Amino acid sequence: MSKTRLAIIAGISAASGAAATAAIFASRSKGKPVTDAPIATPTTSVPDYSTRFKDIVPPVNPNGLFRYGFPGPISDLHPTLSTTSAFDRRTRNPQWVAEHITPASLSANNADRKHSYFVEDETIPAKFRAKLSDYFRSGFDRGHQVPAADAKWSQNALDQTFLLSNMCPQVGDGFNRDYWAHFEDFCRRLTNDYPSVRIVTGPLYLPKRDHEDGKWRVSYEVIGNPPNVSVPTHFFKVIFAEDGKTGGNVSLAAFVLPNAPIANDKPLTDFEVPIEAVERASGLEFAEKLPSQRRKKLCEEVHCTVIVRDYMDRQKNLMGQAPGKRSISGP
Amino acid sequence: MSKTRLAIIAGISAASGAAATAAIFASRSKGKPVTDAPIATPTTSVPDYSTRFKDIVPPVNPNGLFRYGFPGPISDLHPTLSTTSAFDRRTRNPQWVAEHITPASLSANNADRKHSYFVEDETIPAKFRAKLSDYFRSGFDRGHQVPAADAKWSQNALDQTFLLSNMCPQVGDGFNRDYWAHFEDFCRRLTNDYPSVRIVTGPLYLPKRDHEDGKWRVSYEVIGNPPNVSVPTHFFKVIFAEDGKTGGNVSLAAFVLPNAPIANDKPLTDFEVPIEAVERASGLEFAEKLPSQRRKKLCEEVHCTVIVRDYMDRQKNLMGQAPGKRSISGP
Repeated sequence: MSKTRLAIIAGISAASGAAATAAIFASRSKGKPVTDAPIATPTTSVPDYSTRFKDIVPPVNPNGLFRYGFPGPISDLHPTLSTTSAFDRRTRNPQWVAEHITPASLSANNADRKHSYFVEDETIPAKFRAKLSDYFRSGFDRGHQVPAADAKWSQNALDQTFLLSNMCPQVGDGFNRDYWAHFEDFCRRLTNDYPSVRIVTGPLYLPKRDHEDGKWRVSYEVIGNPPNVSVPTHFFKVIFAEDGKTGGNVSLAAFVLPNAPIANDKPLTDFEVPIEAVERASGLEFAEKLPSQRRKKLCEEVHCTVIVRDYMDRQKNLMGQAPGKRSISGP
Repeated sequence: MSKTRLAIIAGISAASGAAATAAIFASRSKGKPVTDAPIATPTTSVPDYSTRFKDIVPPVNPNGLFRYGFPGPISDLHPTLSTTSAFDRRTRNPQWVAEHITPASLSANNADRKHSYFVEDETIPAKFRAKLSDYFRSGFDRGHQVPAADAKWSQNALDQTFLLSNMCPQVGDGFNRDYWAHFEDFCRRLTNDYPSVRIVTGPLYLPKRDHEDGKWRVSYEVIGNPPNVSVPTHFFKVIFAEDGKTGGNVSLAAFVLPNAPIANDKPLTDFEVPIEAVERASGLEFAEKLPSQRRKKLCEEVHCTVIVRDYMDRQKNLMGQAPGKRSISGP
């Protein structure tokens, strides 16, 4: 059990947030290495409830528990070269994984998937970690949240997408190897129209209405022996397509797809949802610091459609056997 | 959506933790107000991955996402006079609620439940909050995690146990109003043997094996229209019974009960589990900073048994109609 723990964040005042934003933008525009930009980890103190009840001298102190350790939850924020992820120790899946792609990062081809291996994320305490053995013979793919194909600019960057903290159990045929892959390809093609694209991907566990009693229920399998990793019912992607200008426009879209086979002729726009729907379903928040006047609607600017390509062709391409053949031309 | 957010914590080094423990103990023993002791909120910085790959100048920066806000999860740590809770914005239930009881806090009777009302917790953003309407006609009780009866030392303290951030949907008959209530009474009776008792209570969502296909599945109802609050399958309590000495012994026990009717003659010890089982199921950690030589086993020191009492009798007592009749005598 690791002794050092990460701090998770919370809010920053609107003012300090804006200043930090400007600073990050400035350092990026000068072409400096960007991963050494610190993740903002301000702490605000817990509200001092006692000041509201100055006349009361409590005989007890619930916070005294923390002398034995803070219960959590801890989200195991894990930045790598190609991903930043937050982990859910209860479901053993990431909460979300963020990535960043550009025309330059996608055109660089310095890595080969055949040198990459799936690995457990040892930054997460063993008792909360997803294990390789959990997936073994489970019937589910180890589904990348940030796709391997988005990190070919460095072998290390590619390798890091193979951490199990970047994986969720995904249905293989008809989903991970098919429609979901086409959807990932759609995201890459956005770099034809935008100089910088950020994508946040993660699992959802959504209720559905029982036909018999009319009640809403969440139901999902847990793989592993003993059962360890939850199988999400759905996956989301929230896309931020940036115009590349400091304080410029950001074109947004959010999609929710079921973890199930999807016919290739199903329009991608069928899966588009308001960002707030992903927020309510995930308990997360996206773009809350992005002013409304900078927000654009991605699917009003580009055709949000998938292009169907054969799984084996894509694998060959990713293995580096056919460099230069990858088409990023849009529809 | 609130602009200020709480910082959530994480670990502290063992050394600084011990110092903080000593300091808290010292201030308590002098009888000072204890709620103004700050919750420890140290931050450790996110590991700097870039130093491991000094030769790589990444063309991308996944952390740049945070200019638009940090996705979370945020756990809405909420200390009140009588409780400290962490909230799960996805299930709309607390992750855990901590309390502290002593012989003095339980014998003080300065409050009346008939003046307390269930209220939504407005410190949680509206889109993630449990609502009174979610529970309405759901068939489930608004089940206190920290019991109202443990906070009769002040009307404000009692009122604060009625925040929905201290509630989960609980089966009423046979559970919340019966066995679970007897279990809460057991916890109170521990103050006969220990001068200070800390209890952490919370929901679990456990898988069970499907008889037909042998697979493990988590399945639970979500109440509200639209569906909003998850109905836990189980509840846990982790108990820390302190001997009252600085750096003294702590007698520990953990229990997991199903959110279902339980026969009154079922032994409480049937529900005792290792603390690590609660940790694995919840994704939380308890007592990680408590050295093994200070740990004792609660149920080897006292009889871990419930005493069955009628629901209406207990309600009358809690309403203050029969002061002095509350028995805290142990078995």
